[in-house]
Amino acid sequence: MLAGDLYAFQDLLTDEETATVQRVREFLETEVTPIANEYWARAEFPSHLIKRFAGLGLAGVERSSLLDGWLALEMGHADASMATFYGVHAGLAMGSIQECGSPEQRERWLPAMASFDRIGAFALTEPGGGSDVAAGLRTTARREGDTWVLDGRKRWIGNATFADLIVVWARDSADDQVKGFVVPKDAPGFTATKIENKIALRIVQNADIELAGVRVPEADRLQGAHSFKDTARVLQQTRAGVAWQAVGVMLAAYEIALRYAGERTQFGRPIAKFQLVQDLLVRMVGNVTASLGMCVRLAQLQDAGVYQDEHSALAKAYCTTRMREVVGWARELLAGNGIVLEYDIGRFVADAEALYSYEGTREINSLIVGRAITGHGAFV
Amino acid sequence: MLAGDLYAFQDLLTDEETATVQRVREFLETEVTPIANEYWARAEFPSHLIKRFAGLGLAGVERSSLLDGWLALEMGHADASMATFYGVHAGLAMGSIQECGSPEQRERWLPAMASFDRIGAFALTEPGGGSDVAAGLRTTARREGDTWVLDGRKRWIGNATFADLIVVWARDSADDQVKGFVVPKDAPGFTATKIENKIALRIVQNADIELAGVRVPEADRLQGAHSFKDTARVLQQTRAGVAWQAVGVMLAAYEIALRYAGERTQFGRPIAKFQLVQDLLVRMVGNVTASLGMCVRLAQLQDAGVYQDEHSALAKAYCTTRMREVVGWARELLAGNGIVLEYDIGRFVADAEALYSYEGTREINSLIVGRAITGHGAFV
Amino acid sequence: MLAGDLYAFQDLLTDEETATVQRVREFLETEVTPIANEYWARAEFPSHLIKRFAGLGLAGVERSSLLDGWLALEMGHADASMATFYGVHAGLAMGSIQECGSPEQRERWLPAMASFDRIGAFALTEPGGGSDVAAGLRTTARREGDTWVLDGRKRWIGNATFADLIVVWARDSADDQVKGFVVPKDAPGFTATKIENKIALRIVQNADIELAGVRVPEADRLQGAHSFKDTARVLQQTRAGVAWQAVGVMLAAYEIALRYAGERTQFGRPIAKFQLVQDLLVRMVGNVTASLGMCVRLAQLQDAGVYQDEHSALAKAYCTTRMREVVGWARELLAGNGIVLEYDIGRFVADAEALYSYEGTREINSLIVGRAITGHGAFV
Amino acid sequence: MLAGDLYAFQDLLTDEETATVQRVREFLETEVTPIANEYWARAEFPSHLIKRFAGLGLAGVERSSLLDGWLALEMGHADASMATFYGVHAGLAMGSIQECGSPEQRERWLPAMASFDRIGAFALTEPGGGSDVAAGLRTTARREGDTWVLDGRKRWIGNATFADLIVVWARDSADDQVKGFVVPKDAPGFTATKIENKIALRIVQNADIELAGVRVPEADRLQGAHSFKDTARVLQQTRAGVAWQAVGVMLAAYEIALRYAGERTQFGRPIAKFQLVQDLLVRMVGNVTASLGMCVRLAQLQDAGVYQDEHSALAKAYCTTRMREVVGWARELLAGNGIVLEYDIGRFVADAEALYSYEGTREINSLIVGRAITGHGAFV
Repeated sequence: MLAGDLYAFQDLLTDEETATVQRVREFLETEVTPIANEYWARAEFPSHLIKRFAGLGLAGVERSSLLDGWLALEMGHADASMATFYGVHAGLAMGSIQECGSPEQRERWLPAMASFDRIGAFALTEPGGGSDVAAGLRTTARREGDTWVLDGRKRWIGNATFADLIVVWARDSADDQVKGFVVPKDAPGFTATKIENKIALRIVQNADIELAGVRVPEADRLQGAHSFKDTARVLQQTRAGVAWQAVGVMLAAYEIALRYAGERTQFGRPIAKFQLVQDLLVRMVGNVTASLGMCVRLAQLQDAGVYQDEHSALAKAYCTTRMREVVGWARELLAGNGIVLEYDIGRFVADAEALYSYEGTREINSLIVGRAITGHGAFV
Repeated sequence: MLAGDLYAFQDLLTDEETATVQRVREFLETEVTPIANEYWARAEFPSHLIKRFAGLGLAGVERSSLLDGWLALEMGHADASMATFYGVHAGLAMGSIQECGSPEQRERWLPAMASFDRIGAFALTEPGGGSDVAAGLRTTARREGDTWVLDGRKRWIGNATFADLIVVWARDSADDQVKGFVVPKDAPGFTATKIENKIALRIVQNADIELAGVRVPEADRLQGAHSFKDTARVLQQTRAGVAWQAVGVMLAAYEIALRYAGERTQFGRPIAKFQLVQDLLVRMVGNVTASLGMCVRLAQLQDAGVYQDEHSALAKAYCTTRMREVVGWARELLAGNGIVLEYDIGRFVADAEALYSYEGTREINSLIVGRAITGHGAFV
Repeated sequence: MLAGDLYAFQDLLTDEETATVQRVREFLETEVTPIANEYWARAEFPSHLIKRFAGLGLAGVERSSLLDGWLALEMGHADASMATFYGVHAGLAMGSIQECGSPEQRERWLPAMASFDRIGAFALTEPGGGSDVAAGLRTTARREGDTWVLDGRKRWIGNATFADLIVVWARDSADDQVKGFVVPKDAPGFTATKIENKIALRIVQNADIELAGVRVPEADRLQGAHSFKDTARVLQQTRAGVAWQAVGVMLAAYEIALRYAGERTQFGRPIAKFQLVQDLLVRMVGNVTASLGMCVRLAQLQDAGVYQDEHSALAKAYCTTRMREVVGWARELLAGNGIVLEYDIGRFVADAEALYSYEGTREINSLIVGRAITGHGAFV
Repeated sequence: MLAGDLYAFQDLLTDEETATVQRVREFLETEVTPIANEYWARAEFPSHLIKRFAGLGLAGVERSSLLDGWLALEMGHADASMATFYGVHAGLAMGSIQECGSPEQRERWLPAMASFDRIGAFALTEPGGGSDVAAGLRTTARREGDTWVLDGRKRWIGNATFADLIVVWARDSADDQVKGFVVPKDAPGFTATKIENKIALRIVQNADIELAGVRVPEADRLQGAHSFKDTARVLQQTRAGVAWQAVGVMLAAYEIALRYAGERTQFGRPIAKFQLVQDLLVRMVGNVTASLGMCVRLAQLQDAGVYQDEHSALAKAYCTTRMREVVGWARELLAGNGIVLEYDIGRFVADAEALYSYEGTREINSLIVGRAITGHGAFV
């Protein structure tokens, strides 16, 4: 049981699910935690871990939403970058093919992705856009016989410097609808340039992508993606995952702070004995517990098939907001030592900012919920 | 389903439990909501409702912690004062007899209390004390043969102006242990004086109690209460109830604000269309959802018998803190109209302050949790 | 020096100004503080104090903005209702006549108002309006020869149950501009009905006003009020006053909490010795000090004649937000005793809600500032 | 005038002072701002700027506390690392010699430091200590005739990898008092090791210092430093400087956010037109204005000679807390672009964490204020 799981939420998993969690946790503790700070400092991706990930047998496997979420939690708990790598590959990229691909396409691409032999990326966001992703999408797809020609630019595309398959979303010039295309990394006209000087999720390799007349056969267009609504279905699933990752980050920050408070002494006693320190710790564990309660119920809604956009939007906005508080309190508790990577908390503080903003800012997710509860859109 | 139950937590109840909830909700909507503001304004208790409460058949009935909590939620949702009246009678007073009484005592007192023929109160807090309730308790019990003589003062005792039976906690001068006594309202030497000029929970009749040589037969001493630990067992149960009541208050505040936002117009449109208004509403429903997730898990821990002091302390501190935010945002949303009782929110804003502080302040509950997670007490 | 004036801002006053402050403070401590809770509980106005106010010689006197503000602070420090009574009479009502009246009108009305022989009210807000006060104003003024006929409804009008002169703002049906009229309380067709069941500023007598064909001679129309811009000039001045009142409320709340912390014991020591209590007190005095620093600079801008709408809007929004935090922390520190009027803090907690919302909500004041700093209006 | 100086606080400077500010601002804009991100990314110090700093003629010059503070603001506004470099050299190191050196020592060391020919550092903090700096100081000084032998370790010492003179504080084994010593960088037994992998103030070169039998002549012991009280006098001065730096950081963050909001479009309009964006900006400028008001008054107290520990402790704790909010809101407003250095805000977000914790955490500064206002120490 994780130290911050005060209400023993983990007990809600079945024995089999617990075993899976245990296996993944051990992998993360053994392989990821020890190297995370160092790769983060260098802003490099630990490519040697890709095959190890494959060994876990996670991708492309049907499982309960609760277990799915809990695995995202465990990854966030170890390292938000690795959680993001996994989320982009197994969630966004494979999820797009699963949701919007034809049976033939699923069979063609998913097995090699499930075995991590081919890594995926997901290219939706554009330089000028963000919150207005549907309306603002400018990358175009023009059909010429059995070929599509893609032109445009994408930004922030995770994994894209090394991914083998990039799911690109573009607007069909003919009918103005957003459609999905699977583009191989070596397609002529496709360039991915690494975004440098990030201060968060530095292990994740994000790229600016340029599509200059990239030609894609009709067979590589996702046959079930007819409009942005189909894209949105994929996002709805992954947005819940970010909420779970955020809980993982909180749990990690809480554990780091709790351990530090027990070891660090001031005025001749462990700082854990001071009221102001306990106050910070209790605020943290309160946020963790409430956020977990929210995510667990969200997973139940998912499995019950009654899950709506506003459900995941609320969880994403709420849990990442609470996470931001938690990592801040943990950093505060570590004082000066909180600003060197060795004490671990620094990486979580920094990475939290990315989680807070990606897959919809707090503002945009709030407006999605707001529309659902009031019946009025307030986006503009 | 309540409007603020966005994640459909109510669906976790069984059909039978849902029916009970439905019955109680209807009673509250029909009998309590319409008169609450008016009794609140006059600081009077609606005695005519006592018998109606009896008709619900709630008190003294075994049920799941989830249903128990949800009923506290429904009462808080209607009126925090009535929730408190019920909590004091059925939770604290009957709970003390249930937990600490002998079989004979349970049989002697509980049936008439379950039928609301006799109303209970619970006298623990004293004028000089509060957070240090165990150490600071000064009311004394001196044994003289088969009679105990009680001397001291109590403060804040809910229901005490009209209760028939008052469970009084006093320190045995002989062994220094805290023991419990059931005192009838007409006992010579017993005086209860209503606390006037309250700004919160005005419907609850709190009293300052004086015990001047009150004589209680040994047969009316709770036979199972040997030390403060036994008192604490009662409090642990009721503290969870306050967390649930707080969720009820939040739900009410949210509904009032949501309805108002849909009806009130400014600049020619419902204010629900404004981003700043949606932001307030979404923050509210986020707090509601997360707090509910916490309470539901707490109930599961209770039913599983693994429930510890720190679990209820965390829920009480966290949910009442979130409640205080929610009622504040709702009041803000109603602007000027938020300060007249007619618009309903005012009563919840005011009452929230009492819930925030009673059954342990945020500070004391945080230190209870802090001790559990760090292993260090920081009370002094 | 007030206990909460940690940075000795009061020393910025001249000796003469300090003497005035001292005189007013003594009056407030002697006459207002001792009776405030009792009148508040009964929701009555202490009419006998009107003449005592006159004796202070404050109204209608030219003075520095710093002293003006500091006097508002002192009144808020004693009682926010009395501060509001004074602000409505001397600020809004007399201010309207001063700013928008002809010399003849000023001479006709102001002396008797300065001596408190005639009390003023200010009728701008309407039942359906609030933030959109200019655009939403529906009360009409129709000219018939030398007479104007006023029709409409006003809400929240302070002092209006007993004021002798009510400055009414109405829209001229002919040119659609907002104009000001001085209406005597006994004008046929004029009715003021007290708003009951307020939970804040209960000493202030607010009224719902009905104007049913009230006839006002052209001579009683404020000759310098040609459009809402003129009304806005009056409001700009008084909005700064609310910021100062809010600082006074904070100072009072801090002092109450500080005193209580020194006297109340728990675990055998004054609670002022506990870290969590000191934390609350320091947060309070931080807010007080920063808000005072803001108000002092605002007064300098006023005196320098460079004062803009956004300056007062920012101070109003910011200081009342900080005030709301401070009274909440103070109430928290007093725990249960914080909910009975006798311990003083309750009244300030309740009244703070009204100050937070009147003269522009936080939202509307934020949007006023937002327009100034971004160059974009975001009201709708 | 800086864009965020909405209340024109800069006008409080004299013309001559304004000219100095203008000169420094230009230097910072020309020399520091353009290179800050790049040196930050590499965690290097721009040594070529040291001589340029000298050219400003700032160090060792008597000036008003207001100007002194404003210069710290300007430096924080450009780059918190450079502000820290300057603060350590001109404030802590030169300040120690100024406050605690004999006239001969002042003359011997200060001129070359004022011309930046010799750079100073200040070695007080130790690995095991922090908040309990006085009680916890373990580095020892043992006198042997006219020589002192220093042994111990120091941590976090800014500038120490390249400073020429390090002011070292050590406890005299004979009388247990803390005394100050000026140690040259090449003293045998003195080692300074750069602290790597910082996530904040990466331009500042902090070092872990080891003192292994470092021999210092009595002539290099600061003759006026007899106990920790003398060290504290130095710290009191510099703590105010951190508050001013924090205001500078807030101003920078606000400007970056304001500019971005005007340029970035979503849904076809600049995001500055959205209520939620204006809300963030107004919260920022509110914090800036209130913090500035606090700092300005603090400077007046300094110049009036009535400045106490609690004054600077409150300003440091309050302004850095507000700063942390402001940089967080600015980062939020920039969403994804907020996590790449190029958009500027990232550096300020990261650096804010160091300012929040150094020269006394929020907790320790709060307890300093708490002791002053309550009369009770609550440190342990």
